[in-house]
Amino acid sequence: MTSTARVHRLAVIRGDGIGPEVIDASLEVLGAAQSAFGFRAELTQISAGARHYLATGELWTPALQAQLRNHDAILFGAMGDPAVAPGILERGFILEMRRSFQQAVNLRPVKLYPGVTTPIAGLTPERCDIVIVRENTEGSYVGRGSTVHAGTPHAVAVQESVNTRMGVERVVEFAFRLAERRGGTLTLCHKKNILIEAGTLWQSTVDDVSARFPAVPVDYVHVDALCFYLPTTPERFNVIVTDNLFGDIITDLGAAIQGGLGVAASANLNLDGSGPSMFEAIHGSAPDIAGRGWANPIGAVLSTAMCLAHLGETDAARAIEAAAVHILAQLPAMAGPAMGLSTEELGREIARLVQSGAP
Amino acid sequence: MTSTARVHRLAVIRGDGIGPEVIDASLEVLGAAQSAFGFRAELTQISAGARHYLATGELWTPALQAQLRNHDAILFGAMGDPAVAPGILERGFILEMRRSFQQAVNLRPVKLYPGVTTPIAGLTPERCDIVIVRENTEGSYVGRGSTVHAGTPHAVAVQESVNTRMGVERVVEFAFRLAERRGGTLTLCHKKNILIEAGTLWQSTVDDVSARFPAVPVDYVHVDALCFYLPTTPERFNVIVTDNLFGDIITDLGAAIQGGLGVAASANLNLDGSGPSMFEAIHGSAPDIAGRGWANPIGAVLSTAMCLAHLGETDAARAIEAAAVHILAQLPAMAGPAMGLSTEELGREIARLVQSGAP
Ligand SMILES: CC(C)[C@H](C(=O)O)[C@@H](O)C(=O)O
Ligand SMILES: CC(C)[C@H](C(=O)O)[C@@H](O)C(=O)O
Repeated sequence: MTSTARVHRLAVIRGDGIGPEVIDASLEVLGAAQSAFGFRAELTQISAGARHYLATGELWTPALQAQLRNHDAILFGAMGDPAVAPGILERGFILEMRRSFQQAVNLRPVKLYPGVTTPIAGLTPERCDIVIVRENTEGSYVGRGSTVHAGTPHAVAVQESVNTRMGVERVVEFAFRLAERRGGTLTLCHKKNILIEAGTLWQSTVDDVSARFPAVPVDYVHVDALCFYLPTTPERFNVIVTDNLFGDIITDLGAAIQGGLGVAASANLNLDGSGPSMFEAIHGSAPDIAGRGWANPIGAVLSTAMCLAHLGETDAARAIEAAAVHILAQLPAMAGPAMGLSTEELGREIARLVQSGAP
Repeated sequence: MTSTARVHRLAVIRGDGIGPEVIDASLEVLGAAQSAFGFRAELTQISAGARHYLATGELWTPALQAQLRNHDAILFGAMGDPAVAPGILERGFILEMRRSFQQAVNLRPVKLYPGVTTPIAGLTPERCDIVIVRENTEGSYVGRGSTVHAGTPHAVAVQESVNTRMGVERVVEFAFRLAERRGGTLTLCHKKNILIEAGTLWQSTVDDVSARFPAVPVDYVHVDALCFYLPTTPERFNVIVTDNLFGDIITDLGAAIQGGLGVAASANLNLDGSGPSMFEAIHGSAPDIAGRGWANPIGAVLSTAMCLAHLGETDAARAIEAAAVHILAQLPAMAGPAMGLSTEELGREIARLVQSGAP
């Protein structure tokens, strides 16, 4: 390769628990992809998460925001520790990041890879290849609400879901484009018969945008019905677009169906260039198994592939996915001591495959 | 039996589609239970639902409310027809009924019965015996919200979830009593790390009521995680208490796990004597299979058993459940032409078992 290598500046937040382990394995794979596909990843390791918070009291700070903005993408391990109260890191860091960098879309493939054990009887990879497009900045996640007479028998807690045409439209448009590329249906998942204000906005936006994508068939399924159909007839879905809260719920169900949190990848995508996108496995920090080398890094590796695809390194992304899927098919267990290979060994194996150009 | 028979006044709303079919089968079973267990059910057939609405324009009326209030319970088939716009019957009838009669609890057993085919690989009845207690009158179902700049690029739709200590406490108390009776754990399902106002009210109510039930272990699981665990490790749960919208979602997932909508029963319980409770299978009107005798009436029959249990006819309720479960184990399919017996024949078979005292 005689031309100057393409350079991508990546911020790496390893985080807590198994976060560092799965990220280290991913970086091993990323290293192999660089030499094989002729790009360069400039990594900045950034300390953040539960341990960092416990040590410094810092969550999302203006300095961190400025530093991260200076990167093309963020690779994210996981955050969380029993010593940090629930909600602190979620609201104080993750939601701040999603909002600050306008990571409008949370993208989660629900794909059953060959050889992976799914809890769904008889499910085959051909029947389960879905992408869920979750709105990632508004809805019930805006943190709006109030409680009157708290702590008394007359307490009333009001929680608001705020949905804007702008916020919904950018996600819906993204989903249509994706469905068009995949040659699939777009399914809107909501509860419009009950949540009429939000549901009307979502449905009318889908109707409007649909006019620009005449080749994409559109469907609508209530969120409750979708939770019935997702495990029973996943072949019914191709691209699903939904709001922040419903997306949070159905993507975890999707992860269960595709064989567990160990394989599930995700992207938090900025669409307008105003900030970096973020890529993470959807599992948490799993403090119970941290430090043992039992964590499955495939979710993190596949998230790294999504990151490279986003940065235009399509060939590298494809090679990493193919290598990870190849290895996955040979794992006797999805995580734990029976996995056969340690987190680190798995990273090395996938890296080796990527480097050698096989499979 | 020489004493005067106990009399229960039941309003019967057969409704639309397969509603009348499954209700008729249930009434056959109810008839058998009456003679076998020495009570009398006085039935009032009430016309309501999609066809009634299309013919008369009437949904929930003061006259209907007065008439229904005069009954001890309501047996409900299903409502819905493609000719009625989505939301009309739900908001105009079902939610009105739940609110008017303060049907505070929506009770949904998620029980895998022996012989039933579940989509979950290797799941056994011992591992799946859960009751979901869903708040049924408030939360996101209050119909509060507003949209500004509708139909423009600046539209903003706000949807409110309203949660009162009174509404939450009565459901939580009910759930604790149920968990105590079942000797099981109580799991609160919410998303308190994000929905802090509502989540704090729910968690503090559970904490407070918990002090009165020291024998019941209490757990908390986020709704997204619950949708991961419900299909993978249902044995983790015994009684789950949750809000209206989360309950709507997780009970449909529960129905999928327990083998389909054909077996899933539910009760909409009034707890203060101010109105009748309502009992229905959780399936819809299924217009596509209506009129063919293919509908599985087991969900409706089990709902009728829940009704009788609620009215104090515990022995009859047990006998009906046992008979339905016995028959269920022998059905080759859950619904459709391969079910082996028609809706009507199934009703007759279960009735015969109830009458004969077997199994
Ligand atoms: C960590 C938390 C804020 C988050 C969410 O609720 O979005 C998580 O559950 C997820 O799905 O990414
Ligand atoms: C019919 C509709 C109002 C209803 C709900 O959303 O509660 C249904 O889905 C249910 O679960 O009973």
